[in-house]
Amino acid sequence: MSEKFVVIGGDAAGMSAASKAKRENPELDVTVFEKGEWVSYGACGLPYYVKGDVDSLEDLVAIPADKFREKRDIDLRTNHEVTKIDPEKESVLVESEEETLEKKYDHLLIATGARAVSPPIDGRDLEGVFKLHRLPSGKEIRDHVENSNPNSVGIIGGGYIGAEMAEAFSARGLEVHIFEMLPHVLDNFSEETSETVEEHLKEKGIELHLGEKIDRLTGKDGKVTGAEKEDGSVNLDMVLLASGISPNTELAEEAGIELGPTGAIATDEYGRTNYSNIYAAGDCAEAENIVTNSPDYVPLALTANRHGRAIGQTVGGNPEPGGPIAGTAVVKVFDLEVARTGIVRPERAKDAGFDPISKTITAQSRAHYYPGGHPIKITLTADKDTKRVLGASMAGKDGVSKRIDPIATALYSSLTVPELEKLDLAYAPPFSPVWDPVLTAARVLNGKLD
Amino acid sequence: MSEKFVVIGGDAAGMSAASKAKRENPELDVTVFEKGEWVSYGACGLPYYVKGDVDSLEDLVAIPADKFREKRDIDLRTNHEVTKIDPEKESVLVESEEETLEKKYDHLLIATGARAVSPPIDGRDLEGVFKLHRLPSGKEIRDHVENSNPNSVGIIGGGYIGAEMAEAFSARGLEVHIFEMLPHVLDNFSEETSETVEEHLKEKGIELHLGEKIDRLTGKDGKVTGAEKEDGSVNLDMVLLASGISPNTELAEEAGIELGPTGAIATDEYGRTNYSNIYAAGDCAEAENIVTNSPDYVPLALTANRHGRAIGQTVGGNPEPGGPIAGTAVVKVFDLEVARTGIVRPERAKDAGFDPISKTITAQSRAHYYPGGHPIKITLTADKDTKRVLGASMAGKDGVSKRIDPIATALYSSLTVPELEKLDLAYAPPFSPVWDPVLTAARVLNGKLD
Repeated sequence: MSEKFVVIGGDAAGMSAASKAKRENPELDVTVFEKGEWVSYGACGLPYYVKGDVDSLEDLVAIPADKFREKRDIDLRTNHEVTKIDPEKESVLVESEEETLEKKYDHLLIATGARAVSPPIDGRDLEGVFKLHRLPSGKEIRDHVENSNPNSVGIIGGGYIGAEMAEAFSARGLEVHIFEMLPHVLDNFSEETSETVEEHLKEKGIELHLGEKIDRLTGKDGKVTGAEKEDGSVNLDMVLLASGISPNTELAEEAGIELGPTGAIATDEYGRTNYSNIYAAGDCAEAENIVTNSPDYVPLALTANRHGRAIGQTVGGNPEPGGPIAGTAVVKVFDLEVARTGIVRPERAKDAGFDPISKTITAQSRAHYYPGGHPIKITLTADKDTKRVLGASMAGKDGVSKRIDPIATALYSSLTVPELEKLDLAYAPPFSPVWDPVLTAARVLNGKLD
Repeated sequence: MSEKFVVIGGDAAGMSAASKAKRENPELDVTVFEKGEWVSYGACGLPYYVKGDVDSLEDLVAIPADKFREKRDIDLRTNHEVTKIDPEKESVLVESEEETLEKKYDHLLIATGARAVSPPIDGRDLEGVFKLHRLPSGKEIRDHVENSNPNSVGIIGGGYIGAEMAEAFSARGLEVHIFEMLPHVLDNFSEETSETVEEHLKEKGIELHLGEKIDRLTGKDGKVTGAEKEDGSVNLDMVLLASGISPNTELAEEAGIELGPTGAIATDEYGRTNYSNIYAAGDCAEAENIVTNSPDYVPLALTANRHGRAIGQTVGGNPEPGGPIAGTAVVKVFDLEVARTGIVRPERAKDAGFDPISKTITAQSRAHYYPGGHPIKITLTADKDTKRVLGASMAGKDGVSKRIDPIATALYSSLTVPELEKLDLAYAPPFSPVWDPVLTAARVLNGKLD
């Protein structure tokens, strides 16, 4: 009888693992249980679906369910929820509308993802209050915007999703408020980057409420009508709760699977949990941070795909580590491109045991004489003792998105600031000054390190 | 008396060295002799000046001559040509319209640059035949286009300058022919990249004559009228000779300064020639290739600036190596962005002692559902034995220019293909698919390496 690989969760990590395992070992019996209807979808595209740049939810699906079933010979069961993992019996309990079943496994992958956090405020269950996470929630939000004609929306949380959704709602003609308890939006970027984003949001007419806590949401006839803060209230027709996501670890915990220091599922370099035949990957699992070499929780799409794929390869008989993460990210905020990698804020670098130094520079995206250039503001953070690059963030209207990648690559090789300054990066007048802004940032920071 | 630093040549390498040396050691007596009128100019901007995107030659100047003199206390002598270096006497002979002088030096930098090669064909001295190199030549070409109303132009040479000038002439309404003796344009890119560029040039109405040698240029009344090839002739009102550049080494050679295997001035890691107090940098000098660790000649602007600056620092008393080069380059060809780094073509990798394997993939520049994406075609070359990345080239209409930089960074650290595949590069739907095309190229090539 062939070996059984069972996967819980049919999005990025789960489907990548299932596909790769089957390619690696076609004899493998691969089953995926997905509690929802959609599989292999790009939740990252939801803001653009709400905005209207993307027509339908189907457009966000990378690979349709039928293809996994027919072309890849994967037993993919949608609307099937795993309710229990039994590591001793090596089986999972599964429920669907039609059946309850117990499925044995030789290898199990937990890819249960994460969920949008509900901040503990009164009124969060009122009509017109939404969270954005899985595809159906995107549809609910778009339908509400199109059918209920709200004039204003309050976004609670100034992270990636808050920033992207501000653009989406604004394009729909809504008055947009962002409420962020911390002093800045995008708080894992440098303060200077956050400030650049805040200025741009204000230019675009977004009302920012920074460092302000919402006491409660107010309503009338069961519908949200506003938010109350310490210093007053704001009228709102609609609210989006975007204050973060939290890993879905309940199934794992109940089965005695250990969580790590971040609260997500602890794994080794191969994605294994404390049970050697149970793996975890994606938004429910930790990964090793390449700068700190400690467990970290950075739920992003590439990591989910990559770690899922590596686990599939391992289960298929050809062990492959998932690899560390740098927390590299880019986000479009209206006309701004905003990117980060590694450890940027000095206080976080200190927490990780470094003696950080940070420097922010502004440089043009193109040769000074070439039309269409814009300033790019870059913060580079390094360790004083070793001169090692720890991280960077940047913002600008031109050529930012992929400029973070050489720095992410430098983190992989533990390059120092002087080494970063020596990189032979691409130059031509339409794309860069002779000294790329990344090199200028390295040069200026290097000057502070001597 | 203070030490004397004499610089021959007032463009990128020379002015970077002079400025940095003076900053490092303000006591230094720094003199720059420039035989022309212009200093510190961006010759890379000339195609955009001819095209009309840049209004005046002054716009191309990074730092005006007066600033070097007044703000940086550099004795900058334009229209002064150094005619002899005497390493024994440690002096140079200099001629200008007003004076002939001998100047003593403690440290000397040769930054004489390069010149456009004249291919050995009859008719190259006819009126209407141009070369593009220093600023005045750009003005001559633009004046000719604007005042003599040519209908057609033949560009001899399909390298960077030929490709950029094709766009410039085409924007001016000229019928453009490119003649390239080799089978492809941009022959230090992969064949696949070159083919992508050729298709695009044809789409834009450029007539390509590949693998064809021009026998002679024909003329009437001293003016160019066409080109004769083996299989026929082409009528032309104007010709641009763009078949390459050659280092200006005569002064150095006459002084007994050694050239390297490439024909440019040989230097050590600090830019020193065989005389320990004579340096060379920029388009007249060799540099170490980071992939082959051998001397290479890649005359590009960043290297000139960086090596000049490092020599300035060394002369100023704080020795700094210039650093190796990867030959990273990007060029805009109409709507295409075309980039390269390292050793791309298998035959060149073989010459350098590698056992190369190359793979070309095509991937989208953005998430499949996000508007505005275009295919990017990437060739990645690696060494079979060590799996080390050797180089890459790519072409596409969106997001190519800075995508070469993580690969250039990988070359710096001698990363392998499996390591390249593990990089945590930036993803968001407007800027990249989840797996960046660079990662996809690494993944596909990695699959061929097992």
